[in-house]
Amino acid sequence: MAPEADVVVVGAGLAGLTAARRLTQAGASVKVVEARDRVGGRTLNHKLANGNVVEVGGQWVGPTQHRMLALTQEVGVEIYPTYDRGENAFEWNGEMRRYEGAIPKINPAVLLDVLQAQKRLDRMARTVPLDAPWRAPKARQWDNQTVWSWLRRNVASRPAREILTLGCEAVWAAAPGDVSLLHFLFYTHSAGGLDALFDTAGGAQESRFHGGSQLVSLKMAEELDVELDAPVRTIAQDGSGVTVRTERGEFRGRRAIVAIPPMLAGRLVYDPPMPGHRDQLLQRMAQGSVIKCMAVYPEAFWRGDGLSGQATSLEGPVKLTFDNSPPDDSAGVLLGFLEGPQARRLTRLDQAERRRLVIDCFTRFFGPRAAVPEEYVDRSWAEEEYTRGCYGCGVATGGWTEFGDALRAPIGRLGWAGAEYGVVWNGYMDGAVSSGETAAQEALRNL
Amino acid sequence: MAPEADVVVVGAGLAGLTAARRLTQAGASVKVVEARDRVGGRTLNHKLANGNVVEVGGQWVGPTQHRMLALTQEVGVEIYPTYDRGENAFEWNGEMRRYEGAIPKINPAVLLDVLQAQKRLDRMARTVPLDAPWRAPKARQWDNQTVWSWLRRNVASRPAREILTLGCEAVWAAAPGDVSLLHFLFYTHSAGGLDALFDTAGGAQESRFHGGSQLVSLKMAEELDVELDAPVRTIAQDGSGVTVRTERGEFRGRRAIVAIPPMLAGRLVYDPPMPGHRDQLLQRMAQGSVIKCMAVYPEAFWRGDGLSGQATSLEGPVKLTFDNSPPDDSAGVLLGFLEGPQARRLTRLDQAERRRLVIDCFTRFFGPRAAVPEEYVDRSWAEEEYTRGCYGCGVATGGWTEFGDALRAPIGRLGWAGAEYGVVWNGYMDGAVSSGETAAQEALRNL
Repeated sequence: MAPEADVVVVGAGLAGLTAARRLTQAGASVKVVEARDRVGGRTLNHKLANGNVVEVGGQWVGPTQHRMLALTQEVGVEIYPTYDRGENAFEWNGEMRRYEGAIPKINPAVLLDVLQAQKRLDRMARTVPLDAPWRAPKARQWDNQTVWSWLRRNVASRPAREILTLGCEAVWAAAPGDVSLLHFLFYTHSAGGLDALFDTAGGAQESRFHGGSQLVSLKMAEELDVELDAPVRTIAQDGSGVTVRTERGEFRGRRAIVAIPPMLAGRLVYDPPMPGHRDQLLQRMAQGSVIKCMAVYPEAFWRGDGLSGQATSLEGPVKLTFDNSPPDDSAGVLLGFLEGPQARRLTRLDQAERRRLVIDCFTRFFGPRAAVPEEYVDRSWAEEEYTRGCYGCGVATGGWTEFGDALRAPIGRLGWAGAEYGVVWNGYMDGAVSSGETAAQEALRNL
Repeated sequence: MAPEADVVVVGAGLAGLTAARRLTQAGASVKVVEARDRVGGRTLNHKLANGNVVEVGGQWVGPTQHRMLALTQEVGVEIYPTYDRGENAFEWNGEMRRYEGAIPKINPAVLLDVLQAQKRLDRMARTVPLDAPWRAPKARQWDNQTVWSWLRRNVASRPAREILTLGCEAVWAAAPGDVSLLHFLFYTHSAGGLDALFDTAGGAQESRFHGGSQLVSLKMAEELDVELDAPVRTIAQDGSGVTVRTERGEFRGRRAIVAIPPMLAGRLVYDPPMPGHRDQLLQRMAQGSVIKCMAVYPEAFWRGDGLSGQATSLEGPVKLTFDNSPPDDSAGVLLGFLEGPQARRLTRLDQAERRRLVIDCFTRFFGPRAAVPEEYVDRSWAEEEYTRGCYGCGVATGGWTEFGDALRAPIGRLGWAGAEYGVVWNGYMDGAVSSGETAAQEALRNL
């Protein structure tokens, strides 16, 4: 069977499309196969009844996300700042507090506990090598424990632990008990620190995409050969190439790049079978748990009340919100996240029941006008057959130190890409893009 | 499409075959489909050059394993005691010590530390409900931390922690840092305590099977309709039944029982797709890491030296051995385990290199005659495409409390079986058998 393409790329998310784009730019022929009827992976635009576009998947880009910013510019998509004016809201012990800037008005002893812990974690994170987290001086010790264990030993006050738990849920879509401390520290270093992960202005939530983040993928796909509705079942390698078998036929390349979440890559059938060591790594890379929820109003009424739309709550189930209104202010959109334990509980409810619980939170945070949205939209990524959880993955305790070296290494003619493979901004669009570029370079070197 | 059978069973290991046997005995028609060219799953006989049969998979049965013992008797397989006479050996700080009974001659302070920790863990384990570990009074706290974290906080001396680490590796085929404390306690309670897990006489290693453990499965299969070489790829449910699509055609039943390790069950394609909550559970159930190694000698020479063949070592890579000679004493067989970190390191070597390291351990433990075996056999279960790790699975931290209720619940017309679903002796043959019996009863109730 003769190769139809130099490289077959499995998965038309940001990583796969970027890999395909870079390969094409370098003169290689590429076939992209995608399980879904659309491109974009975990970026997904949704058209509201009022005609505005919002994203039910990833939606932000921030400073230092150089590869994603460069790609965005290259394909001609514009960005604009996330709405970030006015006071933030903080719910604690059943009471709403308003504050300006990054630091809520709470008991100074609690605040000090939080800030000191954050400083220590940032300092620890900087000792974790991004290309080889298992080589950190204390890698073993950190990989043998969860973030929960560290918080319990190192943060004295319970409210401080609750605030840091909220931060963990918001970034990892997982509870502190789910996440290896080493993975937490790697991921933090990969983003440049906890503030970079948490912040709106100056951080990962700084900017949004005109036309929705999926537009970047849609634009790339226009110039590529993408086979949609083609779930891959088997990838076979032989002496001259790779055969990718999908539900819409076989595709043959000299090499392949598998650009889907590692856990899903572990679910494909490989011939010859995946080496045991890498297979066991993939068994330890569970995707996070998140439901993204939006309520649409005629206007962003909270702005008139001097509120930014950014609320945090220790009560939940929505523990974090943003103002997600369209850039022309033609409507008001509140965005709330259900993350970690809250997502796991609420993904089992029907949408009407979930809507009731989410709108109840919005109403507590922003007043009675939040109770009557024009429209409600949500997306639970655990239910998505071709993602099975967001944002990225949480490597289990022991995973990085026992198996980490198998993550990025090619297996014969197969390379790997996706946000989970990113060295910088792992788990983010930027990590997806850079992983696609790295996989493309590696494929080119071996064509 | 008309049902060909009342129930299609996926997987011809002990759980699947037992389910099929019980269904057949109750008058239901059953089709069993199996990916491999053989039955038995994680039990696998191997014929040595000298004609003796040894097992490269699970091989022991012990007291209180009532369902496995009953099945063994029912199919007419005989058991006999594991060789357990003479002195045991213990390697510590490069030195071999010999001792009688269960307790090595080491520093009494270290020993006290070990015994006290074991007593506390046993007491904690008894508070974990076997059918619902997430309902233990301290379930959250225990599931949020690893066994490593608990040992570090509760066991003062490092050698005591090393001995308990060896115990964890030997039972869970995982390092203490890999395993949720709640999972460890559930599993311990499920077996009836740590001694039941660790012990030869009176414990899980008490007896062996004449003809090899796989014989139980082989005998069951003789009376069943088993389709071999039929890896299942898709399981589709509709209003009247289940269609199981394999590489050797489709099989239709009114119900199906999926009797493979949970992680592998997560790799099948379901139509309709698996609910997100259960899918995310399966992402958190990684299989353990173990390589079973045997060296064959003309006779069991260590017996003449007054040794039992049971050695433990804190040095490794082989940390645990047994006398695995045939019951007629016609040869000597030493059995060594590479478990957890040791298995992960050595599964990446070629067999000749691994053999060298294993035989070097045997020689340290049993003297120079161990250096020249007639034959060497090993099996790394991570490499097995249709198992991907043994013994059972280690639920990740947070797994039981966040997702545990999804483990055993049927999804429509699909039930689940396998050692990982067992309530009693989870992870053992006995747990596999009882899980198969439970799944059969549940299917019968719903036919």
